Parts: sequence; structure tokens; C-alpha cells
Amino acid sequence: MQNKPVIAILTDFGFDSFYAGVIKAAVCSAAPEVPVVDLSHSIPPHAIDQGSFLLDTVCDFFPAGTVFLAVVDPGVGGNRRNLVVDAGGALFVGPDNGLFSEVVARRGLVSAHEIDEQKIVPFRMAPPVGRTFLGRDVFAPAAAAVARGVSPGDIGVESSADLITLQVPDVDVQPCFVRGVARHADSFGNILFAIHGAHLDRAFGSSESSGISASVSGRDLGSVKRYYAECPQGTPAALMNSWGRLEIVFPGGSAMAFFSPDELSKITIEIRSKK
Amino acid sequence: MQNKPVIAILTDFGFDSFYAGVIKAAVCSAAPEVPVVDLSHSIPPHAIDQGSFLLDTVCDFFPAGTVFLAVVDPGVGGNRRNLVVDAGGALFVGPDNGLFSEVVARRGLVSAHEIDEQKIVPFRMAPPVGRTFLGRDVFAPAAAAVARGVSPGDIGVESSADLITLQVPDVDVQPCFVRGVARHADSFGNILFAIHGAHLDRAFGSSESSGISASVSGRDLGSVKRYYAECPQGTPAALMNSWGRLEIVFPGGSAMAFFSPDELSKITIEIRSKK
Amino acid sequence: MQNKPVIAILTDFGFDSFYAGVIKAAVCSAAPEVPVVDLSHSIPPHAIDQGSFLLDTVCDFFPAGTVFLAVVDPGVGGNRRNLVVDAGGALFVGPDNGLFSEVVARRGLVSAHEIDEQKIVPFRMAPPVGRTFLGRDVFAPAAAAVARGVSPGDIGVESSADLITLQVPDVDVQPCFVRGVARHADSFGNILFAIHGAHLDRAFGSSESSGISASVSGRDLGSVKRYYAECPQGTPAALMNSWGRLEIVFPGGSAMAFFSPDELSKITIEIRSKK
Repeated sequence: MQNKPVIAILTDFGFDSFYAGVIKAAVCSAAPEVPVVDLSHSIPPHAIDQGSFLLDTVCDFFPAGTVFLAVVDPGVGGNRRNLVVDAGGALFVGPDNGLFSEVVARRGLVSAHEIDEQKIVPFRMAPPVGRTFLGRDVFAPAAAAVARGVSPGDIGVESSADLITLQVPDVDVQPCFVRGVARHADSFGNILFAIHGAHLDRAFGSSESSGISASVSGRDLGSVKRYYAECPQGTPAALMNSWGRLEIVFPGGSAMAFFSPDELSKITIEIRSKK
Repeated sequence: MQNKPVIAILTDFGFDSFYAGVIKAAVCSAAPEVPVVDLSHSIPPHAIDQGSFLLDTVCDFFPAGTVFLAVVDPGVGGNRRNLVVDAGGALFVGPDNGLFSEVVARRGLVSAHEIDEQKIVPFRMAPPVGRTFLGRDVFAPAAAAVARGVSPGDIGVESSADLITLQVPDVDVQPCFVRGVARHADSFGNILFAIHGAHLDRAFGSSESSGISASVSGRDLGSVKRYYAECPQGTPAALMNSWGRLEIVFPGGSAMAFFSPDELSKITIEIRSKK
Repeated sequence: MQNKPVIAILTDFGFDSFYAGVIKAAVCSAAPEVPVVDLSHSIPPHAIDQGSFLLDTVCDFFPAGTVFLAVVDPGVGGNRRNLVVDAGGALFVGPDNGLFSEVVARRGLVSAHEIDEQKIVPFRMAPPVGRTFLGRDVFAPAAAAVARGVSPGDIGVESSADLITLQVPDVDVQPCFVRGVARHADSFGNILFAIHGAHLDRAFGSSESSGISASVSGRDLGSVKRYYAECPQGTPAALMNSWGRLEIVFPGGSAMAFFSPDELSKITIEIRSKK
């Protein structure tokens, strides 16, 4: 038995917005036999970097063939490509504005196609009016099409040159040292980083966490933990989470409330060999 | 290929309410082969006028045969009809309290049936207790039934006379002049109006937007735009949106924050021929 | 015709969290032919008691065979059992931390199995990393398996002894007297209690509500009502709701705003025979 791919929708529309309902209707209507899930509609408005980070965080944990329909699109209606990107076997449908650049950098680009709007007409709920809701009119129909097995080449033209690349803070990896900037805070106030096991392996020879310790702005977080149950109550701790990435938790409270940064990007974590 | 109709649920329950989950379960359980989507659960509590506006805004963009299950129902359990309304080929299931009056006025009434609770018993999850959750016990089963192809006449009695009509602010259309009142603010702070292309055609002879300009409370918004990309950053602009309707946007910010009205209904837009 | 069981997901992840999307994807992917609904993701973080209350409130109203996937799990990754519990024909999948104790107490325990992680591997989206998201890696695959008809005994070991029991405030039932503590406030500000019809029958000989009256902290709420329409505007009233349970409503406002308790548990309702 193999798990079935799904269509996973990620937007900055907000769950309390009817746009989230409409884009889901557009997908379900065109691909009624494919499970469709709302991955998140809570990306902060126009925060392409957080959308990029979350896609990259979760995509390895979805079944092969999953289609990620991602719309964080401040430039909607402007003059840019609308894409179907194949990165390592998962498909990403959305605007060419950097939203897929972390996924592509890590998993590798198999192909990118620019969606031809004439070819997705059969997958549209209704003829579109206006150019302000490409999620409904272009991306949802394209995502439904490829989820149903239509080849990206059948709804678009190969267009993999010069994809827009997002400027995100690099993870700094040196011998016995890793540094990275916070990328996302979850609903429990946990703080997520793009630092993953491979970074630690590269810096420390293995991801054996017991020999390394973390600090934020000079505050020692102790050794890097593997389980919540290892983290003491009432104090922040660094943890390799279930996405294989580094996270700051605060058992019994909220790490975000503890550090209360002006902006998420002000939080930098450093990992060193234990002295 | 034709897109498949869906069941789209619109309520004022709030997404953070388990009632939203239960009404969806009731529908999915009785019509497991029909895609079911949450159109919105974020209508302000008891705001029939906003529910009516959103249904009218979106319904043309759903596939023929779509069933809208709509529960904004301050008078639940009182003495009023529970309806299945056919308005121009889309079906609307919910209370007779005006929620469907804008849809009916614009698309025309094909038929209205009062739901007979005895006839929806086979579509219920469980025998009901109490009379406070007709969404679960009456409307969801009826919506599932008609979505599965049961004729409204088979679960109810023709009852199209004297449907409750909601008092909503009219769109004022005169030669070379259109005026309307704000009806909904979306999650980006955009302000939506019931003014659509046909109103502009009637006033100005065509919906050619370049020759007309908009103002709110005397503030000139310039010509009516067609694309976000045409709207300058940091200032409000009027736009014909992807629902074929007028909207005030504020690129780089929120139109609601800019105008910060005490109530949405205090915002009136006027469209005139350009001088 | 019989309604089809669903998989209903209840968590404290928050709807604005991508964890809610991922757990749903994990279920849909492994059981694509079963309807999956989000019952609620808005349990206050780590509030096992509210999760327990809501499961017990709703479960009788779902079709036989429904699977409740419930993750309110402050001790995730610690040393405790992961369960599939059969309580009166409905299945409950989640941690052994008391989340199912009210359901089990009222409906009776048919069986409980401790999930064997080796046996759910075929139902997983991907090999897991870390031990912080058992919702995705253990509970979702197990829920999908049993929803598809796999016997709990085929994915786990009988383990019904010494299930963790939650300490919840008892409903005090005496001749002509019932007292209980508030358990949940809904999105309309209604206040819900675990007091149900059987409690009133036991105290008053029948659940005939006209002869009994309610009070909160000495404030008389009048007779127990059956319909919202019976409740006067602008004052709190007690109502037997559509879950067969007692609820305080405030027509035209919010009961929670009216009583504005420091904590929900400070609200105690007493029911007596009318004088």
C-alpha cells in the first residue's frame, strides 16, 4: 500500500477569508477524486519568505506526487510567470516570485513550466473576470490538472531559466559552528529555523546532538535535545524537531513570549561544540 | 470535461467553533462522494446582510449545480421556513430570513421549497435532540440530499410566495453616476461593494473604466483600475475586481486602516464621468 | 441509506497552524476514500479537559463507526501509551492522558489497544524524523487504518487496564437538585455544561423542563428553556441545547461577556424544582 498524493494549499489569504474557501472549491471542483487539504492560509500577508520556508519544511513529509498549490502573491496580475515547478518529484504551482526557491535549492529543479492559460480552461470553474484572483483562475485549475495526471508540459511551456530567487538568510556552517536566523513562529510560540540535520552533520561530523550546545544572543540553551520530554519546564531549549530541523521551545510557556523580539529575524541561534 | 459541483458552506459560526466542524461532518457523512468546502465561517455573528452579499458575490463563479449551504440564523428554532431555493441553477439551502434575497433578486427565482423534516431523516447523522442547531439537523441533510440529485420537491413543498427580503442599501444608478455603500471588508483590508459591471454599463454606456473616476467622501481615487499593478503604492484606489465588482484597495497597506470607518456602512463610493 | 462514518480531527494546534494542515494531509493521504473533517483545532493549548468535554458532547451525533482522531498532548514523546479506544462503537485515537475518559465513563469501554508503530508503517506518508509530532507519525496513520476497516487488534496490543482518568468536576445530582461547573464557552459566548437530560431525569423524575429553574451564583435564570426563541433578549437564560445538555445563552449578546468570569470553572449552575 502506498499513500496517495494530495493537493496541499498554502496561501496568505487568512482562514477567515472567503478567498480560502473559493480557491479550495476551485481545486475540489476540478479534481474531485484527489484529497485536498488546507496546509495553511495563515502566512502573514505577502510574506513570501515564510511561505518559502514552510513549503521547504514540510514537503519531504508528503507522499511522492503531492501537488503544492501556493499563493503568496503581492504582485498578482503583474507581468510575471505563473509556474508549475517539479522539484524532486513534488509539484509546486504558483507565481514566479521566489516562493519555491528554497525548495528548488535543496531538492533540485527537475523542470519548470509557465502555465498557458488557454490550456487550463477545461479545469476552470467559470470564465474569469478581472485579473486580481489568479489563485482561483490560474493556479487552482493548473494544480488540479497536474494532480489528475496531466503533464506540466501539456498545460505550459518549459521555462526553467532565470527563476526568481528569494534572498533568505543563509545558514552559516563552519567547522564546529552553525548559525541561523529564525524563520517562523508556530501557534505554540515555538521558533523554527532552517537549520537541519545535514547542516549539523557538516559542521560537527555527525548530528550527534549530545555533544553540541545552542545559544541565542549569548543565552545558553544547553545541549540540543531530541524530545520535548528532555526539555526542562520554564526555560527555553533547542530541539531537533519532527521536520529534522532546529526549533526553540519553552515547555510550559511560549518561546516567542520569552524572547519577545521586535521581529522574528532578530533571533539568531548559534550551535557550538560543547566545551 | 466539466467541473463538478461542490457543496459550499457559509456560516457565522467562526472557524474556531466546533459547530463548523460538525455541520461539515453532517454534510460529508450524508454525501460522501460530493466535494465539500468551507466557503467561510467568518460572517460576523448574525450579519445576514454580509452573508447575503458574499453569496451573491461568489455564486456565479461556481459550477452549475453547486449547493450553497448557508446558516446565518439569529432566529434559529423560531417559526419560519427552512428553504431550498433554486436561483438560476444554483441551489441555496438555509433559513428564510433574507439570506438569499440578493441572489434571488439578481439571478431570478426558479423555485423555493420548504424542507419537510420527515423527508430528510435518511440524510441525518443521528436523531436530533433540541431545536438549536438546525444547521446540523435540517440544513446539512437537505443540502446533502439535493447535492446527491434528490429533487427539492422530494424533500419539501413548493413555497416560493412571500420570501423574506433583506433591506440592503441599493446601488444608485443614474446617467453618468453610480453610488453604493461598502458591504464587506476582506482579510487584506480591501473594501467590497455590490456595484458591478452592469451598473457601470447602465450609467456610462459601457464599463470602459478609463473614462470614469471614483471618490469616497470627497476624496478622489482617480480612474477605476483593472489590475492591482495599475494601482499606485501607498494610496487608495478603486478597482473592478475578479468578481466583476468594485473594490477599494490600498497597495502596500489596508484600505480599511486608511479610512478606519466606525462602521463599514459609513463608506460610500461615487463613480462619475471624468471631467 | 445509512450515513457514512467520517474521520473527525480534534486538536489544540490552532487553525492558523500548519500542523493542522499536515495532520489532515496525513489522514487524507492514507484513507483517501473516507471523508475527513476538522472537528476543531481550537482547543486551548494543552487543555485536555476541554478536549474531553467536546468529544463527549458531540460523539453521539456522529454515525456509527466514526473515528475521532484527537491530539491534545502536552506530554508528546514521553513514556505513555498511544491508543485506539473503542467506546460504544465509536473509535478514539490519541494519547493515553485522560482525553477519552469522559467518553469511556459514559459510553463504556469496549476495548483499548496500544498502537504498535511497526504495524502502522504502511499508513504513514513518510518515514518519521524526531519524536515531537506523533499526530502526524502515529495517530493519523492509526486513525486512517481503523477508518479503512483494519481492526485495532491488527495495529496494536490489547491494553485496556489502567487507562488514565481525567479529574473533571462531577455533575452533582441529588433529589430535586443538580449542580455543575462550566466546561466550555463557544464562539457566540454561550456557556456549555456537562449536565445532560439523564441527570435532570434522575433528579426530577423527568426532564420536563417547565417545572425546574436555574441559577448562577444566586442569579435566577428562570425556567430551563428548550428553544432560543423562548429566551428573552438581553438577559441570560438556561437552555437544553441540541447536544441534549445544559447551556447558558444570552440572546442579543454573549453570556461569557455578561458573567465575565476569571476562569470558566468559576461558573457553577444549580437547577432546582420551581417553588
